[in-house]
Amino acid sequence: MHPFTKHHPDSVAALGETRLIASIRRWLGGVSPPAPFGIGDDCAVLGGNPRRQLITTDPVIYGRHFDASVPPRAVGGKLLKRNLSDLAAMGARPTAAVVALALDPRVRTSWLEDFYRGLAAVARRYGVSVVGGDVAQGDGFFGAFLTLLGEAAGPRILLRTGARSGDWIYVTGMLGGSQLGHHWRFMPRLAEGAWLARRRAVRAMMDVSDGLAKDLPALTPAGTWPAISAAAVPISAAARTVAARTGRSPLHQALCDGEDYELVFAVAGRAAGTALERAWRRRFPRIRLTLIGRFIVAGQPAEGSVDLAALHGYEHLR
Amino acid sequence: MHPFTKHHPDSVAALGETRLIASIRRWLGGVSPPAPFGIGDDCAVLGGNPRRQLITTDPVIYGRHFDASVPPRAVGGKLLKRNLSDLAAMGARPTAAVVALALDPRVRTSWLEDFYRGLAAVARRYGVSVVGGDVAQGDGFFGAFLTLLGEAAGPRILLRTGARSGDWIYVTGMLGGSQLGHHWRFMPRLAEGAWLARRRAVRAMMDVSDGLAKDLPALTPAGTWPAISAAAVPISAAARTVAARTGRSPLHQALCDGEDYELVFAVAGRAAGTALERAWRRRFPRIRLTLIGRFIVAGQPAEGSVDLAALHGYEHLR
Repeated sequence: MHPFTKHHPDSVAALGETRLIASIRRWLGGVSPPAPFGIGDDCAVLGGNPRRQLITTDPVIYGRHFDASVPPRAVGGKLLKRNLSDLAAMGARPTAAVVALALDPRVRTSWLEDFYRGLAAVARRYGVSVVGGDVAQGDGFFGAFLTLLGEAAGPRILLRTGARSGDWIYVTGMLGGSQLGHHWRFMPRLAEGAWLARRRAVRAMMDVSDGLAKDLPALTPAGTWPAISAAAVPISAAARTVAARTGRSPLHQALCDGEDYELVFAVAGRAAGTALERAWRRRFPRIRLTLIGRFIVAGQPAEGSVDLAALHGYEHLR
Repeated sequence: MHPFTKHHPDSVAALGETRLIASIRRWLGGVSPPAPFGIGDDCAVLGGNPRRQLITTDPVIYGRHFDASVPPRAVGGKLLKRNLSDLAAMGARPTAAVVALALDPRVRTSWLEDFYRGLAAVARRYGVSVVGGDVAQGDGFFGAFLTLLGEAAGPRILLRTGARSGDWIYVTGMLGGSQLGHHWRFMPRLAEGAWLARRRAVRAMMDVSDGLAKDLPALTPAGTWPAISAAAVPISAAARTVAARTGRSPLHQALCDGEDYELVFAVAGRAAGTALERAWRRRFPRIRLTLIGRFIVAGQPAEGSVDLAALHGYEHLR
């Protein structure tokens, strides 16, 4: 039996990404440990390890994560930076990576050289050793699959779970319009993530990779909903440009576009939030930090807040 | 610039797999540590770790590593077993894995379920936790990219380097004709590899994955060549069947077919070899162990030996 079907209801596209990942966990059964030791957070925490070692994996695929407009050096850099962003989201630092390639034999050698030189430049900058890999043929295809190891940068790591009702929601940087270049120009928030993990008031964190509307539910405590102030959302100039093309609102682009690679996190208490904002401005004066909302109990009205459930972030299988 | 070229001399196919991997190491430069801490052995040894942690990565790709004749459960099993064979080759045991998928949205959900259930069955058997993964779209493509972590099973790991002139060359199992089913039915030699790593007389080891003719040079000490006795090579029945189709000799198939997933290793001294053979028969009575040759100094004649340089193992990019 070959893997493909022409009958849409039988396909993974009909299932959709979210249900597919839930299914994979079910199919794996007992060999799939609960998060954060398994699938379900930005990285997995490797058990039985005093150094709190972490692992994550993300690819770049031609036609999905980059196109011909992106310089090959930037593609190689993006491959590592995507994975670094997952470590940043837990307050960790990287150690070593392996890269598996699947490529058409017609891939241009000079293109691949630039790709690896771009990857190496980012690896040097962040102290990552590229310790292994594999090369396999994939007809009409170019994909590079990186697995990254890391470890806690400080005394604790931050998980997606841990936020509580009443916590304040912050986001770094500006959101939306990533397709205009941010998706490969971004800098992973490693220093910021490690710094935030050292602040007691920060209770939970994740990176924004599929759009805030799609990602934020994972940070939201049970029995609450994230009341996001429409006026507060930091909308990037690129999101406005894209909105002018799509006819959607800039806010919609900011909440639904993928690949922001920013951090979103929950802070316990308004006073703690204000203190954190002050300390942030001293430590990261050039990087915007925005209070965008609060986790409130279900049913509680919140004037001026966005209905995230009505929006959809980036869908991986369509 | 897109990654592909129509001009063959500019392509990775023209470069070939061996030179491509050498190029990748050069392009990576300082971020690529020397083996065994980087590219060049069956696994990479992670530095600065008292547990001697290892990492390896291998995929399965539709049309390359399996076709429609292989049951999906077996494809999932093969994905993990390929990587387990790399750990076996160093005398290590597995700990945790992550799996990145690239798949066409038309992949059949029930096919993927069987794939994951087959993967889970092998993971349970060998005590592997599947701790993370990623799902990305790859049009017209199915590939699963697994990265496996492991650790030394005993006091030492075995590397590809370490053999010396005069060492005797042994191989486990039977060789060749893997395409008739062994390529997914094989059992990774984990217990055997761990046992061999505990025998002082064994100096170096690797797994046979691209054909003995292509793989053995990596085990061969500088200034020597592997004198392989044509009469001694353990030729599988499948190799004879394939040879009848191709018109090549069964010996050629045994030396050049890929995916044997057997172990080849070097033993110091003939007496030590005889003792090892006796102990092996007690411990692994059902698994063949064959003395196939010896590393001898260059220029030294060896009657009845095969000229491996005239043969080619499995070529990944053609």
